[in-house]
Formats: sequence, structure tokens, C-alpha cells
Amino acid sequence: MANPTAAMLVIGDEILSGRTRDANMHYLAGEFTKLGIDLREVRIVSDDRQAIIDALNALRQQYGTVVTSGGIGPTHDDITADCVAAAFGVNIDVRDDARALLAAHYERQGTELNTARLRMARIPDGATLIDNPVSVAPGFTIGNVHVMAGVPSVFQAMVASVLPTLTGGAPLLSQTLRVYRGEGDIAGPLGELANTYDDLQFGSYPFQKDGVYGANIVVRGTDGARVDAAMAELSALFAQ
Amino acid sequence: MANPTAAMLVIGDEILSGRTRDANMHYLAGEFTKLGIDLREVRIVSDDRQAIIDALNALRQQYGTVVTSGGIGPTHDDITADCVAAAFGVNIDVRDDARALLAAHYERQGTELNTARLRMARIPDGATLIDNPVSVAPGFTIGNVHVMAGVPSVFQAMVASVLPTLTGGAPLLSQTLRVYRGEGDIAGPLGELANTYDDLQFGSYPFQKDGVYGANIVVRGTDGARVDAAMAELSALFAQ
Repeated sequence: MANPTAAMLVIGDEILSGRTRDANMHYLAGEFTKLGIDLREVRIVSDDRQAIIDALNALRQQYGTVVTSGGIGPTHDDITADCVAAAFGVNIDVRDDARALLAAHYERQGTELNTARLRMARIPDGATLIDNPVSVAPGFTIGNVHVMAGVPSVFQAMVASVLPTLTGGAPLLSQTLRVYRGEGDIAGPLGELANTYDDLQFGSYPFQKDGVYGANIVVRGTDGARVDAAMAELSALFAQ
Repeated sequence: MANPTAAMLVIGDEILSGRTRDANMHYLAGEFTKLGIDLREVRIVSDDRQAIIDALNALRQQYGTVVTSGGIGPTHDDITADCVAAAFGVNIDVRDDARALLAAHYERQGTELNTARLRMARIPDGATLIDNPVSVAPGFTIGNVHVMAGVPSVFQAMVASVLPTLTGGAPLLSQTLRVYRGEGDIAGPLGELANTYDDLQFGSYPFQKDGVYGANIVVRGTDGARVDAAMAELSALFAQ
């Protein structure tokens, strides 16, 4: 049976401008792989209302689960929650349960729950909150979409809150053989082996740095014995 | 006048599985920003024929320039060139000019130009070659799409080959103010300032690590004097 599918939508002017390097995508990819959920596509769009709505609607219709990251803070450029509501065609407003979380948190801190902070309690109708043990302001789940913060420590905490609610698949096992030969020498025998083991995926990821070159051959599959067998044949083929 | 727009398509099972962390997107984003080209969207898809074709057709119709990375090597999982040809509805085969480059290179190396390596000379009809000073096997440009290798050193060399052919815009200048306050305190005055300077973009990028929190406020625009003026007001607003 095929594994559940997922996609990610990163709302990130700061990534598209080259200011910061993505960390959340890499983290989510690793967590989903461990859980046997196939991350099939990632889109990164800017803080543009229509771009966010269009991408979200495309992804949520095509994949089983969608995770978004970024744009749910208190500042004027945090427009993700409103875009998600628009994509689902539902109302959005400050919600009592989210406001209560924030009120309690800022009261403990002796900080004012001002208008800006209250924006973080804006939750689309029908959504359930995602726990944020780091900085309290919640994410939310609506339909198959999980809306999370962009700050990596908060994103990771929200992923930890959501993962137990997702149905995983057969975890994908992988083994890697590092071969110091040109891919052109590897390609023929590798292609034949990939045909023989058509229940596995064979990837060849070339590297070239400081005059040293070769490829990491990665064998992936859900049946450990089959991956082992393929690796044994690979090692024999490409014994140095 | 608005800057030229661009998008990137990363063909990358290895990124979606969490095996490797993207480097090419971050590099391209930085280069485009310096040149005044707005990178508006990035999509990462797996080594799946239809996914690559669909994403490429969507992006090339929506944006001025598209750069792809990955999947143009000699192994069985390198299917990008064939997908690009299919997306454009043109024929693809080994082409004499690309074959000549490879033949000369492998002859110098004393390496056989075998069937696998010859795959790297498959170029869609109507494309022009992109120079690859690192490992010779060329990328190619067809229409507004530039097809490049995934290995970062080769990708960067191909970007350097293509950048001089692109029309840039007004380079985006940016300045950053690091503020050690919660975004909730910043948001109100920041939003008002952003309204006053509506020719500039104001981004607030919160951080939270080891108990220290705050936000980097980034002001971007093409008019240096305006960016300076906004930064001066920002600094006064948030003087510690």
C-alpha cells in the first residue's frame, strides 16, 4: 500500500531574498521520512496574499497533509492565518480559546496583551489549535492543513504536537554507498540493478569538490531484507 | 518599474527525503537579489515525470525566468532534460554540439564516452547550451527556462554563465535592525511606519533561542536614501 502523501508551503520572503537559509523544510522532511509519510512537494512563496491562497489550495487538494510555516506572528507582514481562512472560505476572528492562552501567558510575564499580540489569537472558524510550548501563540489545523510558525524552535515544537495525530506509513529505510567513480561509470550497472529491484528506489547523488568526485548511491525501500540484498549487490558491483 | 520576476524548480528526491539540505536555492536567491531580479516562488518536486512537467509549465508561464536544478546527469534517475522537452512539446536527442564537448573532455581524461555519459548530450530541439566549466556536461536554455545541474559547484558555475544574459532590475537594497523585544511590542509602531513608507518593504523576522528573543526588522527598497530615512526612524522608535 502506498504511503500517505504530504506537501509543505513555506511563506518566506526572507528565504526568497536569500537573507536566511531554510531550516524548517529540512527538519520536516526528516520527521516525515521517519514516520513513513512521503513529502512530495514543497513550495516557497512570498508574503503575497494571492500567492499564498493559490498555493495552499493547489497543495491541499493534491496531497493528504499540508504543513505551512511562517507568517503567523503579530506584525503587519503576518498574513498567513487570514490567507488560510480565505482559501477555505471561512470566517476568521479573535477566538476565545486562543485569547485565553495568550492572556494567561502575558499576565504571567507582566506584558500587555495589546492589539498586535491579539492578532495571534485570530483563528479561522472550524480550526483546532496546535500547542506551542515554546512561545504559547498557537498554530492551528483546519482540514488537512497544519499552520505553524516560522521560527525554527517553535516550528519544531508544533511539528512534535501534530505528528502523533498523523497516520504514518511504512517507514522508508535507506542505505548509502559512497563510490569514488564518475557517475558515467556507475550509471549502466546501476540502471540494470534498479530494474531488477523494481520495488526499491535507487538514487545517485553526485558530488564534486576540491578535485574529488563520485556519487552517493542511495537505496530506499520499506523491506529491510530487500534493501540489504540490493546493497550487497551494489557493493560487489562497485568494489574499489 | 517593477523588477523582472523569476522562479526556481528544484528536482530533488534527496531534499524531500531530508537526506540533504538545499544549497542551490539559497545561492540563486542571493545572486538574483543582487541583480534586482525578484525570485517569487520556488518549488521542490520529486524525480517524478509528471510532477516535473506540471510544475515547469506552471512556473514558466507565470514568471519571467525559471531556473531548474538537478536531474541532468547520466544515471537512470536523471530525467529532467526529457521532462523539459515534453513540457515544451519538442523532440530531444543526443545533439552534435553537446556530444563534441563531452567527447573532447573524456578523450583528454582517457575515459570512455559510454552510453550513460552520452545521455548528458541529450538536448531538446531549439535549446542553447549552458557552459559548464567544472565538469563539462552542459546545461541548456530553452525559452525562458535555464536547466542546470544539482551539484552545487556545477550549479554555481552555470548560474555564472547565465546571469550576464538576464535583464536585471533595480538592485534591492536592504538594512537590518536587530531589536531585543517581543514582536508584540514592535508590531504597532512598525506597522504605522510601514504605512508611511509604502514604497519600501518592512519585514519582521522573529528569533527565539536559548531564552533570548527579539526580531530582525529588515527594510528593503530600491531607493537608498529612503531606506536610510526609514532606518533612522526605526532606530529612534526602538532605541533600547
